[in-house]
Amino acid sequence: MPIHQQIEYADANPEVRATYDDIRATRKTDYINNFWKVLANDPATLKRTWESTKQIMGPGALDPLTKELLYIAVSATNQCPYCIASHTASAVNKGMTDAMFHELMAVVGMANETNRLVSGYQVEVDERFKDAK
Amino acid sequence: MPIHQQIEYADANPEVRATYDDIRATRKTDYINNFWKVLANDPATLKRTWESTKQIMGPGALDPLTKELLYIAVSATNQCPYCIASHTASAVNKGMTDAMFHELMAVVGMANETNRLVSGYQVEVDERFKDAK
Amino acid sequence: MPIHQQIEYADANPEVRATYDDIRATRKTDYINNFWKVLANDPATLKRTWESTKQIMGPGALDPLTKELLYIAVSATNQCPYCIASHTASAVNKGMTDAMFHELMAVVGMANETNRLVSGYQVEVDERFKDAK
Amino acid sequence: MPIHQQIEYADANPEVRATYDDIRATRKTDYINNFWKVLANDPATLKRTWESTKQIMGPGALDPLTKELLYIAVSATNQCPYCIASHTASAVNKGMTDAMFHELMAVVGMANETNRLVSGYQVEVDERFKDAK
Amino acid sequence: MPIHQQIEYADANPEVRATYDDIRATRKTDYINNFWKVLANDPATLKRTWESTKQIMGPGALDPLTKELLYIAVSATNQCPYCIASHTASAVNKGMTDAMFHELMAVVGMANETNRLVSGYQVEVDERFKDAK
Amino acid sequence: MPIHQQIEYADANPEVRATYDDIRATRKTDYINNFWKVLANDPATLKRTWESTKQIMGPGALDPLTKELLYIAVSATNQCPYCIASHTASAVNKGMTDAMFHELMAVVGMANETNRLVSGYQVEVDERFKDAK
Repeated sequence: MPIHQQIEYADANPEVRATYDDIRATRKTDYINNFWKVLANDPATLKRTWESTKQIMGPGALDPLTKELLYIAVSATNQCPYCIASHTASAVNKGMTDAMFHELMAVVGMANETNRLVSGYQVEVDERFKDAK
Repeated sequence: MPIHQQIEYADANPEVRATYDDIRATRKTDYINNFWKVLANDPATLKRTWESTKQIMGPGALDPLTKELLYIAVSATNQCPYCIASHTASAVNKGMTDAMFHELMAVVGMANETNRLVSGYQVEVDERFKDAK
Repeated sequence: MPIHQQIEYADANPEVRATYDDIRATRKTDYINNFWKVLANDPATLKRTWESTKQIMGPGALDPLTKELLYIAVSATNQCPYCIASHTASAVNKGMTDAMFHELMAVVGMANETNRLVSGYQVEVDERFKDAK
Repeated sequence: MPIHQQIEYADANPEVRATYDDIRATRKTDYINNFWKVLANDPATLKRTWESTKQIMGPGALDPLTKELLYIAVSATNQCPYCIASHTASAVNKGMTDAMFHELMAVVGMANETNRLVSGYQVEVDERFKDAK
Repeated sequence: MPIHQQIEYADANPEVRATYDDIRATRKTDYINNFWKVLANDPATLKRTWESTKQIMGPGALDPLTKELLYIAVSATNQCPYCIASHTASAVNKGMTDAMFHELMAVVGMANETNRLVSGYQVEVDERFKDAK
Repeated sequence: MPIHQQIEYADANPEVRATYDDIRATRKTDYINNFWKVLANDPATLKRTWESTKQIMGPGALDPLTKELLYIAVSATNQCPYCIASHTASAVNKGMTDAMFHELMAVVGMANETNRLVSGYQVEVDERFKDAK
């Protein structure tokens, strides 16, 4: 049994229903993830988080699949099982192939390794990187 | 003064020189980052890390720029200043625009936020994500 | 089956029993959490950890409920399921309302987001914060 | 020299100026932190982040000082120097005493320690915490 | 059901089989951990990761048991349940006693605590540590 | 200028002086690290932290050098510059050679990499590790 109750559409207040409706319309699916159903205990956070997600994860200078890969990279670094499972599913929906996933994992592993080599060896930032953007 | 001496090409042993030569040839630049010059204190790790980097960061199912974005996503999550500075420079070299960087940061920030909402609210993995890949 | 045996009171040596007795007296409950029963495999660490906890989590300049909220903030940031579950229970015992929990989570999420924006954008510390305490 | 240019009010576009105006009015100070001046390179993220901060950090079920303490707890756990420096200054402005800071640090240290004892010892969640909220 | 299929020897391609054979020969056991069977979905990463592991974890200036303890220290800090479980088993195989495990955990807990005290209190590096190696 | 004042022996109260005396006697040096001089702002935490350190880091089932290596492993994983610098100095004092440091770093890097491969690939714990200790 989940500790924080999942709020179903039928039991939701109008503010939560409005967010659920927007999730469904935006994602073109009736399914509402557990994440949103739990956040619905706090309608203000549900709304703010969904609206940020919608703004951030949509198409822009980066395409939505690349954004899902970045999400997985962060979630695997933080070791968040729910986030890895749900965004892996989203990425597959958006076209991630097995080969792409394998390369994503290889980069995430390598970056986590070299981040620690840098800190352990106390490597100083190269002058040329200090004003490179 | 850096704590771990940076090994310059002129002072390097043949094994380290061979790695430096390969870094220069692969990257089409004479410049060797401080990271490699410090790792050169341990030639075996220098060689292994460089060869893994070369294998992983090259073109494949994901293009090299996307891989740099993933590297930055991990490094910002881990808050590694050297890694952020050096891979931001690499990403710019490979075509990252300001707009792309801004969207990258927005996704990294959002994912770090929602990772903690998920854990704090103890959200359970949806059944449908348990065998979705 | 837990990997590290949980030491029950009946099976505990006198040093462990003394710590269990103090936990029970301090918390006004007979219940000993799994955490302490597992730590009891190392009586010195059990005793040191309990005594630090008792000293730190009691009333002082901050009240015990605020301290529980801080504990949850750290545990959600580190994504420690046990710690989140046990300290959420403790916080509820000490008076945490649903509204307080929601605001706690919102702050934790936001801080985790902005921590990464700061590092990714390589924001320099304002002069005025360098000697402000 | 900061890598990402800090956008001063005089150089800001109307959208950024509107956010700066709101920061100044809300905080009752002319000072704009480096964080906001760097985020201003991406006006959409500046606006979204500021509006979330304003919504989350204001008074509610938790008072603003408690929220600053929670922010520091997260930032110290993540080891974000900028965030620790800026929010320590904010907390002092809102009334944090030395004694409160010391207790905050003691809790943060202890929670980070016990989080790892729990994971290293593979402690299982107590039944009674599984449906306690 | 695991999301990423575990590749059994009978179903593996020749490249994966060669790695499995080397794991078995090196470890003097027929057993292949789930980790390797899942990585086998990406034969290049399986081979690279195994060869790095074999090179790094073998005897050298540090003995194999000390290396397992270091592995557990990292894994408990990152709170990776699989890694803690599998490397605790490996460490026991290599001679880790209960007393050693308890001391390992005490150091890991303490280091995680003091790391945050240092960052929260913004302690500056002593001059004498700046060129000490 | 450090934000939190460093308390020198001459300015310390008797409780702090007693701890400083014990640090000096135990470590056979007059030098007190910045860490302790900053913690001295909170004499109770200074005393508790020092006493825990003394208890934990002394000889036992693991020798003091191994404990320093574990400390560095945690600190590099958490990317704490002060902690890496100070404990690298301590480890050198206790006999850490360059070769040992290189192997330590290799293990830390590898463990951080594989921790994320495990989480990203959602590897399930092998049955045989579930009751192995």
